[in-house]
Amino acid sequence: MDRPVGEKSSGAPTIVEVDLGNRSYPTDIGSGLLDQPELLQKHVHGKKVIVVTNTTIAPLYLDKVVEALTKGNPAVSVEYVILPDGEKFKDMDTLMKVFDKAIESRLDRRFTFVALGGGVIGDMCGFAAASFLHGVNFIQIPTTVMAQVDSSVGGKTGINHPLGKNLIGAFYQPQCVLIDTDTLDTLPDRELASGLAEVIKYGLIRDAEFFEWQEKNMEKLIASNISYTSTVVLSSLLQGIFLQAYMQSGVVNCRNPNALAYAIKRSCENKAEVVSLDEKESGLRATLNLGHTFGHAIETGFGYGQCLHGEAVAAGTVMAVDMSYRLGWIDSSIVKRVDDILPRAKLPTASPETMTVEMFKSVMALDKKVADGLLRLILLKGPLGNCVFTDEQLSNNF
Amino acid sequence: MDRPVGEKSSGAPTIVEVDLGNRSYPTDIGSGLLDQPELLQKHVHGKKVIVVTNTTIAPLYLDKVVEALTKGNPAVSVEYVILPDGEKFKDMDTLMKVFDKAIESRLDRRFTFVALGGGVIGDMCGFAAASFLHGVNFIQIPTTVMAQVDSSVGGKTGINHPLGKNLIGAFYQPQCVLIDTDTLDTLPDRELASGLAEVIKYGLIRDAEFFEWQEKNMEKLIASNISYTSTVVLSSLLQGIFLQAYMQSGVVNCRNPNALAYAIKRSCENKAEVVSLDEKESGLRATLNLGHTFGHAIETGFGYGQCLHGEAVAAGTVMAVDMSYRLGWIDSSIVKRVDDILPRAKLPTASPETMTVEMFKSVMALDKKVADGLLRLILLKGPLGNCVFTDEQLSNNF
Repeated sequence: MDRPVGEKSSGAPTIVEVDLGNRSYPTDIGSGLLDQPELLQKHVHGKKVIVVTNTTIAPLYLDKVVEALTKGNPAVSVEYVILPDGEKFKDMDTLMKVFDKAIESRLDRRFTFVALGGGVIGDMCGFAAASFLHGVNFIQIPTTVMAQVDSSVGGKTGINHPLGKNLIGAFYQPQCVLIDTDTLDTLPDRELASGLAEVIKYGLIRDAEFFEWQEKNMEKLIASNISYTSTVVLSSLLQGIFLQAYMQSGVVNCRNPNALAYAIKRSCENKAEVVSLDEKESGLRATLNLGHTFGHAIETGFGYGQCLHGEAVAAGTVMAVDMSYRLGWIDSSIVKRVDDILPRAKLPTASPETMTVEMFKSVMALDKKVADGLLRLILLKGPLGNCVFTDEQLSNNF
Repeated sequence: MDRPVGEKSSGAPTIVEVDLGNRSYPTDIGSGLLDQPELLQKHVHGKKVIVVTNTTIAPLYLDKVVEALTKGNPAVSVEYVILPDGEKFKDMDTLMKVFDKAIESRLDRRFTFVALGGGVIGDMCGFAAASFLHGVNFIQIPTTVMAQVDSSVGGKTGINHPLGKNLIGAFYQPQCVLIDTDTLDTLPDRELASGLAEVIKYGLIRDAEFFEWQEKNMEKLIASNISYTSTVVLSSLLQGIFLQAYMQSGVVNCRNPNALAYAIKRSCENKAEVVSLDEKESGLRATLNLGHTFGHAIETGFGYGQCLHGEAVAAGTVMAVDMSYRLGWIDSSIVKRVDDILPRAKLPTASPETMTVEMFKSVMALDKKVADGLLRLILLKGPLGNCVFTDEQLSNNF
């Protein structure tokens, strides 16, 4: 499974199978996969395809994807809908644009939706595929690390509600996920770092060996072309600590595509295993939410799009790790290792100072992990790579 | 299974099991079921329930349902949302009101949606349950014949799009369906007749014996208190033939609750069997759409709510039966029996004269049963109780 780190992979993809009975599907990972039309075409049903993408990704990859879908396959016709880019457009109005396009194109049940973009596009296109005509075929081509290692795996699709993130959606599995790691060449550095928050999470909750690999290889994963001055693009809302995390990041290194491919593959394997054991999140799957309860509160408190998902998750992870330590469930070396690795991944280690306890409480009461008024938190417990669920009264842990 | 026709049933419900593996659920059918709190309460998970109903049904049955949910069960709290009544409100805006209420009530995953009303309420509430927090518990209490024999069975949920009916939705199965036949006491006669179109359909496509039972007992099923003058409430759009069908209806008879209960049970059994064999409508389930392709065209052509679903289905059934006969697939006696039974059920036997061939073609091209440009029709073939699927070019059969 491990190619020499430093060389680009090519040729046949590495395949991670998501095992869900008759809804199982492959995740193809590798370089140059969009240049291999058969990888996509074998999963297209019917004669019509609609690609859902956004204004950022369309100029970069839409032509390439249309070519991959149609090359040597003249019977297929491809249409597309280009949505505005950003989490704030992950809403019902934008979703309706996808339905409008599908109806306007006179699509029938035997057509295929293709999501080309990051998590927002994947979630919205997936929910459209789940809901249009009670469910049609669906292929994911995630173009961000976040989408590749997290949101494209496991079939959670949906949109936001003004009062909370991902409150409306469906579990819906794609025909396949195609991860062409070359699409990361155009991914902004801050977006790449955001995805690494989820990569680090897999190590913490269930894969100590992977975490150790990351400790050895983090500089091979991170962005190459960030400059200190570019950090000022961070919203002024994200004061102090967020910026501090960026300023602390040390030597500038080159991204290593094979290291990234390995991190993506291993992350997908971890998520696929969890999802195959608990597709509908009745238990185990919720452990993937380490740092997310606090993280969602940070995102919601600030309004979507002000900080990236992974940045909020990183800050939330530190809060969860801190709570785990204060409960005596982990020793201080784990706290230190988390505090060390996050800045190396150019991620923040604390929530913005403007986020008050009251803001956390108010937003977290709406979290999906609240059951009958009890807030369920994912905390670490025991040696590195172990976590637990805990039912906590909202009022007791601040 | 058959109580003496003419007496009200009471006590334990008749149960029709919908067999879908780990998503199987019971349909309880009988009189006085809302007076038996345990029937509902055993399917409620968590401590919160939200009842979704409409302005027509709320004054009639909401208190009764709230009592059934809470009697001897003080831990549960019930909230409700009352939507405007009618097919034209089966849209995204109205659905968002259900989500708003759920979020406002700080509902978590362990709560239960209860749909109290006809097909529109069941479809919308079911889609809300399917989509809120990626899926929560859901109970159906259908209060119309149409919902009891068709829409509440089998897990199709959804909303309309301005360009077509039921284009957005999900397959989502409830915890249980509770059919209290007493709720039909307040059902307008025209609505009752509408539901009978589906009852007749089950006989035609797969249950000749049931059709023969209907031929013997139709007057026991139909509405009691319709007067000839009340037919003028039909929209002026529905000219000529629709009215004619009503005017032809003969002797005024009393509804017989046990005959209705039997018709509902036998219809549910038929639908449950089809759904358990083909939940996602890859083949067999589509046979339930006899008359619906034409029927949807009639509904869409007129705008939702101008004619009732069953009225459109009845007219569509006559068209499908006529086409079956013209193809030489059935003999004339079946055509005659259909033409006889529909007016006895106070249903029309032809589409309104204002519906042109061009209107049919245009609307039917958007039908879900179009696959790669071929319109799939359900037609009768062979002896009574048999039907087939047919792929037809849109242009050839008018």
